[in-house]
Amino acid sequence: MRGLRALVFDAYGTLFDVHSVVRLCDELWPGKGTQLSQLWRAKQLEYTWLRSLMRRYQDFSRVTEDALAYACAALGLTLDDTRRARLLGAYRELATFPEVAGALATLKAAKIRLAILSNGSPAMLRPLVAHAGLGGVIGTVLSVDSRKIYKPAPTVYRVAVERLRTPKSAIGFVSSNGWDACGAKSFGFRTFWINRSGAPADALGAAPDHVIRGLDELPALVLGPVS
Amino acid sequence: MRGLRALVFDAYGTLFDVHSVVRLCDELWPGKGTQLSQLWRAKQLEYTWLRSLMRRYQDFSRVTEDALAYACAALGLTLDDTRRARLLGAYRELATFPEVAGALATLKAAKIRLAILSNGSPAMLRPLVAHAGLGGVIGTVLSVDSRKIYKPAPTVYRVAVERLRTPKSAIGFVSSNGWDACGAKSFGFRTFWINRSGAPADALGAAPDHVIRGLDELPALVLGPVS
Repeated sequence: MRGLRALVFDAYGTLFDVHSVVRLCDELWPGKGTQLSQLWRAKQLEYTWLRSLMRRYQDFSRVTEDALAYACAALGLTLDDTRRARLLGAYRELATFPEVAGALATLKAAKIRLAILSNGSPAMLRPLVAHAGLGGVIGTVLSVDSRKIYKPAPTVYRVAVERLRTPKSAIGFVSSNGWDACGAKSFGFRTFWINRSGAPADALGAAPDHVIRGLDELPALVLGPVS
Repeated sequence: MRGLRALVFDAYGTLFDVHSVVRLCDELWPGKGTQLSQLWRAKQLEYTWLRSLMRRYQDFSRVTEDALAYACAALGLTLDDTRRARLLGAYRELATFPEVAGALATLKAAKIRLAILSNGSPAMLRPLVAHAGLGGVIGTVLSVDSRKIYKPAPTVYRVAVERLRTPKSAIGFVSSNGWDACGAKSFGFRTFWINRSGAPADALGAAPDHVIRGLDELPALVLGPVS
């Protein structure tokens, strides 16, 4: 793909598989894992958008904990300190999806700069990237935290332009969250939506440029066919 | 309650019962009504927050239609023109909750000014208020549309201050949406959260002043005990 010098990746759900959190939810409350983790995730995102609009930013670890407390209360599940610590701890030790390491290595070998831009706070992202052994391949880890507002506010995507010192036309943005891909497209990045579940496209006035099923499709799209 | 000169009400779910929309969903797709209407509502709100953050405002009728299309696609339901028109039409003919007329009449008799402040566009709110026969009791109908951004952005709540020419300390805000009550409180209104379903409180850094189960509890709270 002509002119792309950097790729910026969303973290949770894009590079990192949150399935282990779902599994732990189900271990702690058998039969309730899926329902709890879905409500937890929905509230987590909802709180990022609402706090952004209200101008009452709190970092992602706080929002994640608040969302967990809400979800447990709504489902009548008792959240004690031990369970809370285990669930929040699981967020720092997520596995990457199986195709991630190979795809990133190919892109890095082709001299594409690789970065993360996440809602996660620096204190959440640091152990996450280290645990997955991505420190050597992901050169830059960026958080919305410096702007005190969450995705998809345009100022968040601008962090990547500024920190990578690269014009937005030369940056590709990769996310498994359809709304995040729309937000990045609206800002001006070339966007790749990883639609692993075959979800319908969101109608937000800015559609992703490319829809793929996994990161393994990314190198060919970005680098062109191997000659 | 000392000093409250005006009460501003949210519309959908607060004064107007959206149950008839749920029923129509179930009539059109038997057995799917609850699931469809829940996803439709969730997406409708999500799109208002996302478009606000992306600065890609479209009015509430458009967002409502987009959310319906998404929800039907996600559930594998075929949405033809007739069904779409019936579902969107139902939004203009919602019934009020049973206690609304009595509570509003009591408040109006006590010289409290009554207004609506809604995400709905003027073209949606006009027929809704007329159909419910509230034109005589609700003196002012306000929409976020003049600001081109949705609740809970502070500028939206400021519309009520400006249009009612009343300081925010003298305005009470009433909503069945917990996040809306938090947003109004964060702006500076005295807020009343109508928690009909016994939901947990949202953790958004600004808690409602009062939690009630229905509008029938409002006159005594606002006017004090009848002497």
